Amino acid sequence: MAVYTEVADDELDAYIASYDIGALMSCKGIAEGVENSNYLVQTEAGRYILTLYEKRVAPKDLPYFLALMEHLAARGIRCPLPIHDRQGRTLRKLAGRPAALINFLDGVSVRRASIEQCASLGRALGKLHIVGESFPQSRANSLSLAGWRPLSGAIGDRANTISRGLAGEIDKELAFLDKAWPGRLPKGVIHADLFPDNVFFLGPEVSGLIDFYFACNDMLAYDIAICLNAWCFESDASFNITKARVFLQAYETVRPLNAAELAALPILARGAALRFLLTRSYDWLNTNGGALVKPKDPNEYLRKLRFHRKVKSYRDYGLGEH
Amino acid sequence: MAVYTEVADDELDAYIASYDIGALMSCKGIAEGVENSNYLVQTEAGRYILTLYEKRVAPKDLPYFLALMEHLAARGIRCPLPIHDRQGRTLRKLAGRPAALINFLDGVSVRRASIEQCASLGRALGKLHIVGESFPQSRANSLSLAGWRPLSGAIGDRANTISRGLAGEIDKELAFLDKAWPGRLPKGVIHADLFPDNVFFLGPEVSGLIDFYFACNDMLAYDIAICLNAWCFESDASFNITKARVFLQAYETVRPLNAAELAALPILARGAALRFLLTRSYDWLNTNGGALVKPKDPNEYLRKLRFHRKVKSYRDYGLGEH
Repeated sequence: MAVYTEVADDELDAYIASYDIGALMSCKGIAEGVENSNYLVQTEAGRYILTLYEKRVAPKDLPYFLALMEHLAARGIRCPLPIHDRQGRTLRKLAGRPAALINFLDGVSVRRASIEQCASLGRALGKLHIVGESFPQSRANSLSLAGWRPLSGAIGDRANTISRGLAGEIDKELAFLDKAWPGRLPKGVIHADLFPDNVFFLGPEVSGLIDFYFACNDMLAYDIAICLNAWCFESDASFNITKARVFLQAYETVRPLNAAELAALPILARGAALRFLLTRSYDWLNTNGGALVKPKDPNEYLRKLRFHRKVKSYRDYGLGEH
Repeated sequence: MAVYTEVADDELDAYIASYDIGALMSCKGIAEGVENSNYLVQTEAGRYILTLYEKRVAPKDLPYFLALMEHLAARGIRCPLPIHDRQGRTLRKLAGRPAALINFLDGVSVRRASIEQCASLGRALGKLHIVGESFPQSRANSLSLAGWRPLSGAIGDRANTISRGLAGEIDKELAFLDKAWPGRLPKGVIHADLFPDNVFFLGPEVSGLIDFYFACNDMLAYDIAICLNAWCFESDASFNITKARVFLQAYETVRPLNAAELAALPILARGAALRFLLTRSYDWLNTNGGALVKPKDPNEYLRKLRFHRKVKSYRDYGLGEH
């Protein structure tokens, strides 16, 4: 959420000129995205986002992300469309970093979504999963079950400085998920980070999904679980079952869940909560005071994890009998 | 150069609705301006900058700044135009802070200006000074001679940690300027902070002057001295006399300098260098590691100050006999 890399005047001019988008009109560093440098660029042809990829994104994964966005955008998903330069390339280099130019999407991200917005999100996620089916490339989810134990090891007992007894609680949760984690659910392309920051709305309707830099191939219902956590809790940690119901029902109007997915939902939600508890804990413990990005509170996800542990079935998320 | 204050969704919607500019289409925090929070806002009617004024700008001065921009923009100066809300106000409150909405200006700020751009800047500054003559309000320059001694006192001997012997060098310079500072030069509205960050270009021509939050009434030639320092030195501290010449000559095509102004130019340039040496030194010594804004190197202005001490007359800035 910050501009890290500055681009020299003449380098920027040459970069823009390598695309067929007219002359540069303005260029502003913006606070957006995971941990990349983002510029809002206006040229004679329109508005674009110029992204310089910083170290959190592995360069080898960039062709997957860019091709995925292109695949989705070409099939009606409102997501950034990578622009081809005059030589046909989408992945470029600028200021010593991998770089890409994508089209600008109208819309505003919300901190607290309305019921209608949760419904629109459900439909948008369903469509993303359907359209992703035909995407030929594949990328493993490095932040699923197999990735959690190394992350937990890197955090170690320092977890207890975040919350008393947290290290032990993480261990127990990992042991449970190791056994309970579902293996045979429908898989496909998931966004894997569809937080409110990454969704734009115009009024009640989703106008854009952005930041595909955690996208990967995994169980589709896991993406749903991530959204339940990110969108259906209030700031006081209470679960808003109305939002969950409309989100899930709207998703199912596009892609109905099968019985195995429904049964696995509470476990997937625990896993999704643990995933963000772990990454937030790691960032919390490893961010020095001078960082540009303020680390997010891991305890929010500890509370969500504990909520899902008490859930008996998918019906506790507001869905009726299927 | 950072977004400090976040605005809640519903507060932003209500704020935008209080203007006659259509519905909100997008809103991005941008890295721009002195130390205020700035958002690039797009509505159905166009693009705007929403500024929330943080503590460096005194609220009592805001009516002066906003009225000045309106005065200048109405008379053909390419500067931000404050937008009136439905009740006719330009100065508002948002997220607990003073706030204003101004129109968006196309253009790109450059790190190293070309000769042509320096000439365009000279003309733009001359026009600003001419058009400012009819502005009825007045604001004292708190960062001129009378303000430097208290600032120097607040820095004290810690200056020596920036450069060996700097505290004594500042004292001697202050003593000199106390005696030599000119008093009877033509006065008017000056920008007082016309650095490359605050000037937009489209190609070789100035397309916008921004950030009027140091503007005040002072000697017009002092504004010229600030620009000589900010635009006519190379990054290796060498003085680019070609840039100075075209800048000054272009300025004089709009507003010729009188003999007293020409004679005072080296002293004004020393004062202008000292002013930024002092504020940068203060910020350097008083910024903790966690600050969002990286302090600028004071030594750059120490080198400029020393350059001007050796200057014999305005002819050393590239101007011929007048």
